This record gives sequence, C-alpha cells and structure tokens, in this order.
Amino acid sequence: MNNTEHLLKQLMDLLDRGSVANQAEGELTTGIPVGVSNRHIHLSQADIEQLFGSGYQLTKLKDLKQPGQYAAKETLTIAGPKGSFSHVRVLGPARSNSQIEISKSDGFTLGIKAPVRESGDLRKAATLTVIGPKGSVIMESKVIVAKRHIHMTPSDASRFSVSDKEVIWIKTQGERKAILGDVVIRVNEQFQLECHLDIDEANSVSLGNDAYVEIYKPN
Amino acid sequence: MNNTEHLLKQLMDLLDRGSVANQAEGELTTGIPVGVSNRHIHLSQADIEQLFGSGYQLTKLKDLKQPGQYAAKETLTIAGPKGSFSHVRVLGPARSNSQIEISKSDGFTLGIKAPVRESGDLRKAATLTVIGPKGSVIMESKVIVAKRHIHMTPSDASRFSVSDKEVIWIKTQGERKAILGDVVIRVNEQFQLECHLDIDEANSVSLGNDAYVEIYKPN
Repeated sequence: MNNTEHLLKQLMDLLDRGSVANQAEGELTTGIPVGVSNRHIHLSQADIEQLFGSGYQLTKLKDLKQPGQYAAKETLTIAGPKGSFSHVRVLGPARSNSQIEISKSDGFTLGIKAPVRESGDLRKAATLTVIGPKGSVIMESKVIVAKRHIHMTPSDASRFSVSDKEVIWIKTQGERKAILGDVVIRVNEQFQLECHLDIDEANSVSLGNDAYVEIYKPN
Repeated sequence: MNNTEHLLKQLMDLLDRGSVANQAEGELTTGIPVGVSNRHIHLSQADIEQLFGSGYQLTKLKDLKQPGQYAAKETLTIAGPKGSFSHVRVLGPARSNSQIEISKSDGFTLGIKAPVRESGDLRKAATLTVIGPKGSVIMESKVIVAKRHIHMTPSDASRFSVSDKEVIWIKTQGERKAILGDVVIRVNEQFQLECHLDIDEANSVSLGNDAYVEIYKPN
C-alpha cells in the first residue's frame, strides 16, 4: 500500500483500540472511553438462591467491557422507605458479597442516604430490601453510590503516569464541560481502559457512552 | 469591646453577608452560595388562566432568594411521551412567556430531549403537556435544561473580576470535588449572590443548598 493508505491504516488501528478520542475540537489526543453505570446489583450465590430459588444460576444477557463481567437476564425490585425501582439489572458473575450501586438521585427516590464508596467498601453503607420471584433479602449495609474510577492495565497506567489507587482529576468535553476530582485509578492486567461514571455524573456534564475523558492536572 | 470581640464581630458580619464559605478544610475564603433548582414552571398570565381558570392569580408560598421571585402554592402535572411528574412547583410572578426547567434525568423519565439553555432562550426547546385543575396547555418549544449560572450585583462582579454574560469555571468542595465549566455570569443591581445548579449537577458533586463554590481559573 502507498503512504496515505499506510497512515490511514495506522489511524484506523488506533481508533479500533479506543485510544483516540473524537474530540469536539477535532484534535487527536489520548482519551479514555466513558462507561455510564445505571443502578445495578451484584449478588452472592446465597442471595441468588434466596431470590430466585435453590440451585439457581444467573443467565448471561450481554458481556460488559470489563473481561468476565456481564449483564444478567435477571432483574429485581429494590425498595426503600420512600420508594422503589423495578427491573433493576443484576450483573454477573456471583460475588462473595452482594452489593447494590445506585446514584444519589436514586437515593432520594428510595429514601436512603448511601455513601460514596469504592466497590467492595461497605463501611456505613445503606440498606435496601431486594424482592425477587422466589423470595426477598434485606440487604443490610450493602448499598453504595460508586466512587468514580478508571479501569486500566499496568501499561495504560505507565502511559498516563498514574498508579493503582491514585486519586486523580479528569476533564470532559461538551456543552457542560467539567473537571471531576476524586477519581480512583484501578490497575489490573485484565482490565479494559474505561472511566466509570454514574447517571447523575453523566447527566450533569452531558456525557454518554460514546464520550471520552482525559486525565487532567489542576493548578 | 476588646480585640477578640471586635474580630468576632467582623467575622459574624462577613458570615451574615454570605461571603465566607464554611470550607471542609476550615479555611476562610470568598465563597458563592449554591442554590439547587428542582424542576419548575414559569407561566404567562394567559397560561395561568388556561390552567387554573379565568382571572386566576398565583398565590405566594415562599420568597426565593432572588428579589421579587417566589415559589407559588400552585403545582401542576407535566407529561411527556414516556412519563410524567405531578406536583411540579410553579414559580411566580407571571412572566411574558411560559418556560419549564427540568434536569437531563427528568428528560429521560419524560421521554424528551431538552437542550441546555439560558433562561429565556427557547431555541430548539422541547415540548411538554402541562395539566392543571381547569385545563391543559401544550407547551410547544418551552422546555429547557437550565445552563448553570451565577446571579450577582455589579459590586460582586467587580470583586470577582468577572462581567455580565462571561462564561467561567467554578470549583466545588466535598467528597466528589469538581470544577464545572460553562457557568454564565448574570449581573444585575437587584440580584443576590447565588450560583444556580440543577439537581443532576448538585447530586453528581454531592452539593446541597448549604454549599459554597468558588470561581476558578483553569490552566
């Protein structure tokens, strides 16, 4: 192939790897793809059986971007003192502990005050009742608002000059530009590069699943 | 009074003027109080009469911070193709044009895509039906998501070195720190210093009506 074709191919490869953001300004840069999380539930095998019946196994509906993780066909109702949501998606596979992730605004609808936490950190977490087709579980201290975070490999971490557990800032583009702090870096060989924001965060800065963010160093 | 009393009095005066933020770090600084807006409706007198009956006048429930503006006792139902909200607050006094302000997440519930706009700018605004006790109005191209903005007097503007219509950045404090861009300065002799954010914005950065923000110059 000629030079132009060669350059085009290189560019297409870069775009395929998701490492180039299609910025509003048209510049090529090193963007991090955004994944917007709606409210969802992780379940222990014991809770799966309590909610769906003895020996029940989750059914995969769709792979998520992070390897091994999937959206299950199963959905559940979650209920708090002031309100409830039905059809809340269960994510698989089963974990050692159940955990419910909601947004701050979901918390107002449900009537609970869930703390902002990293996944797995359930200190002072809130409580909700989960209702399934075969039973209910009171999820005591299992409800959090997920702290914003970026999944990446050690090679990504090296490229961005950040390290596991580091708390950084990201910059968004669009009609409601923002620089968001308190973003946790999570490094693992298995991770796909992805910045997880919840629905409140995505709405407030007008970002969707097609968006990219950049790491930013504030003055 | 002695020196300590004198200093205390100066501090109390500053706090009274709302010009000192109670920062997490305990430092004294020049903060701008936050006002969080939930979905609400401004009505023309013609629409008031269509919804509530001929000759109807709004009833004041509570003064808002901006002089002359008030929350009315009246509430209405707003409905879109996918959902509706009841008990949506009407703000008074009557305006020359009706306008509905919602959040992005309200837009998803209602099934409409309202653009981010300054108040009064209804270009490509969305449409909702408003249902009152005596009639309904199809509010064609009257629904927006309010662009974040700061009300201030000319004296505030001079103190912050900003001018009317300038678009600036603000910095928040708390567990989900953020620097938000696309904030419009609105200067008027009658205004009270106040930064208006909507519910999505407030939730995404964990801010309430007791919060303060600061003007920020990004690098």
